[in-house]
Amino acid sequence: MEWEHRLTGRAKRLVPSVISEMMRLAAGKGVVSFTAGQPSADLYPTDELVAALGESLRGFPEGLAYPHPLGDDKLRGWIASWLIREEIAPARTEASRILLTTGSQQGLSMLAQLFIEPGSRILVEDPSYPEALLTFGREGAEFVPVPIEADGPDIAALERALRSGPFAFFYTIPSFQNPTGYTTSTEKKRAVLGLAAKYGVPIVEDEPYYFLRYEGAPPETYLALSGGEGVLYLGSFSKIVAPGIRCGFMVLPPELADRASMLRVTLEIGLPAFLQRGLAILFDSPFFPSHLARLRRAYGARRDGLVQAVDEHLVPLGFRSTIPQGGFFLWGRKKGIDAMPFTFRAVREFGVGVIPGSIFFVDEHAGKEWLRLSFASVSPEDSKEGCRRLAEAFGKDP
Amino acid sequence: MEWEHRLTGRAKRLVPSVISEMMRLAAGKGVVSFTAGQPSADLYPTDELVAALGESLRGFPEGLAYPHPLGDDKLRGWIASWLIREEIAPARTEASRILLTTGSQQGLSMLAQLFIEPGSRILVEDPSYPEALLTFGREGAEFVPVPIEADGPDIAALERALRSGPFAFFYTIPSFQNPTGYTTSTEKKRAVLGLAAKYGVPIVEDEPYYFLRYEGAPPETYLALSGGEGVLYLGSFSKIVAPGIRCGFMVLPPELADRASMLRVTLEIGLPAFLQRGLAILFDSPFFPSHLARLRRAYGARRDGLVQAVDEHLVPLGFRSTIPQGGFFLWGRKKGIDAMPFTFRAVREFGVGVIPGSIFFVDEHAGKEWLRLSFASVSPEDSKEGCRRLAEAFGKDP
Repeated sequence: MEWEHRLTGRAKRLVPSVISEMMRLAAGKGVVSFTAGQPSADLYPTDELVAALGESLRGFPEGLAYPHPLGDDKLRGWIASWLIREEIAPARTEASRILLTTGSQQGLSMLAQLFIEPGSRILVEDPSYPEALLTFGREGAEFVPVPIEADGPDIAALERALRSGPFAFFYTIPSFQNPTGYTTSTEKKRAVLGLAAKYGVPIVEDEPYYFLRYEGAPPETYLALSGGEGVLYLGSFSKIVAPGIRCGFMVLPPELADRASMLRVTLEIGLPAFLQRGLAILFDSPFFPSHLARLRRAYGARRDGLVQAVDEHLVPLGFRSTIPQGGFFLWGRKKGIDAMPFTFRAVREFGVGVIPGSIFFVDEHAGKEWLRLSFASVSPEDSKEGCRRLAEAFGKDP
Repeated sequence: MEWEHRLTGRAKRLVPSVISEMMRLAAGKGVVSFTAGQPSADLYPTDELVAALGESLRGFPEGLAYPHPLGDDKLRGWIASWLIREEIAPARTEASRILLTTGSQQGLSMLAQLFIEPGSRILVEDPSYPEALLTFGREGAEFVPVPIEADGPDIAALERALRSGPFAFFYTIPSFQNPTGYTTSTEKKRAVLGLAAKYGVPIVEDEPYYFLRYEGAPPETYLALSGGEGVLYLGSFSKIVAPGIRCGFMVLPPELADRASMLRVTLEIGLPAFLQRGLAILFDSPFFPSHLARLRRAYGARRDGLVQAVDEHLVPLGFRSTIPQGGFFLWGRKKGIDAMPFTFRAVREFGVGVIPGSIFFVDEHAGKEWLRLSFASVSPEDSKEGCRRLAEAFGKDP
């Protein structure tokens, strides 16, 4: 049977993920991989997870039944209190507005299904997270790029874009953005909120890295600044527990929580409640704050290691980058390279994996001189060796 | 901010699930609930799951990393061998064609995303599983009903329908169908396959209840009979392990596995591999076949209990039903009732929950005299009491 002509437009718009492909190549033996937004396996709280899941499975038999479409009550309640306590969400944010997701990627996918039809226009930071763009693109979105600067979106460019007509939403990653590591300032957030209200455009605030800050104080979130009005917030436990637990969440306006709940029933009925309850048990223990502190120390040291290795090996060759205050990524530019072929050669011939900057831009011809280096799973020693190899690859680049 | 006018056509087509609503009502204290396709909590293999998940988490650290979009290799390999051994899938069915899903509902949702555009026509057994219809309807499918008889679809009606033009697929639940409990015979399957090939229509074969057979020998599957050609197969562990593990699978043609893999990345990156690996450990142990045998004994006894209680309390009032050879459902008719208001009154005033037959039919005005009774979580004693109450409700029905 021939299948291709039976597929929907949506299915035909699907394309492979370059990051996945590059991660596979960089998983080879002896390769130093700066590719993944993957947390480091040695930092997974495995023993605590085993204990918490055991407790959940034994003490909470309903966790093995068909789940509620919004997710486990107890974890949703914990998240609501936590977001309020951390001043991420406005006081009185109710658990009924929290939806648990299979990682925040599922939040992005659900928002795409709720808001994007073929031809819908979306404002996106440029560059931005490619898997989000793949997901919005799947539903037929057209992207209007807003250049991002070290302190957040270019406000003048945002306003020019907003004047050009209706948008489904503005997608932003305010903290330690993927791929740039940039953080949007409170001042810029106020300006963006003002424009979003003026032009009636919702903000999709994606914050997977928020808790991985190595210096400075966090700016206020869009969600808190707006009082929750017009902001759809996405959070994730992938980076602060483990990506394999596949658990994230959304904070939605009440009207949308109902709609998302009906969507969830058709997507998969619901998600594993015993797993979500296990996480609630983990988060409620004194272990969790000390675990977060440990992550910040470990990733902070890796960031410092990479920054030092870059200074030593790459800066002398003209590589220029900024130092991220948190998250996993260092974003840098090497004049004269063509990132896509360069990175494939670097991994194959020099044993060092980095992500080509070009895949993060709306215009596929942009970003040719940019590279994204993740330090998440790279020790300072490996960073040194990786940057040495990268320098070699730069040197041999024709 | 006003949200309703921002939603996609897809989002606006979402409607609440009547089964969920009825399950909530029937969860009240003292109610005998024949509502759910929910397996019975006392039959969950909790201790074995705790052990298998602990083994997986400790012995398989990759299980906490970002997962492969198709799912855990080991579980996919186990499923391929199992399906071949049980003669469900053709020999040489490769693991590369198996995709793990969050329950088979996610398989239905992915197929909807791959094959259904607004206006796509779908052939469905009538009556059929409403959550499947909600999911296909979400993408804008139009349903062409094929009446189902005790041995499967009405072949003449199927051929008449097929002549009326192109269809995205034919959706069928061959074993102990939901809601009727009917099983499609091998002979009818051959006829359906012949017609499907003649008119070029794929078959979506949904088999959540296949392993819960209490008598007789299983007919061959569409997947095996077709040699895998033109058949998309959906399986689930919800009914034979626990629904809360949220794990099912699809067997797809190789070209579609690639496409579904790209879709999966945009949906949620991937699913919890440590959980899938834990299931592979559970299935590989001698416990699993004995667990299946235990389930068949327990559910078989509950079926017998319900059939006896129906004979005693309802048949004298003119209720007519068939005896299912497996699965969870007894499907019956009581002349003169209007099922939707009747069932709401039965649960509120008489403390007995059943599902109105009308929600299973494509034509919302059909099925008014039909009821679905699930015996999955009802002991023979409770069945007796439940049928007594139902008889009372019948008696009082104006």
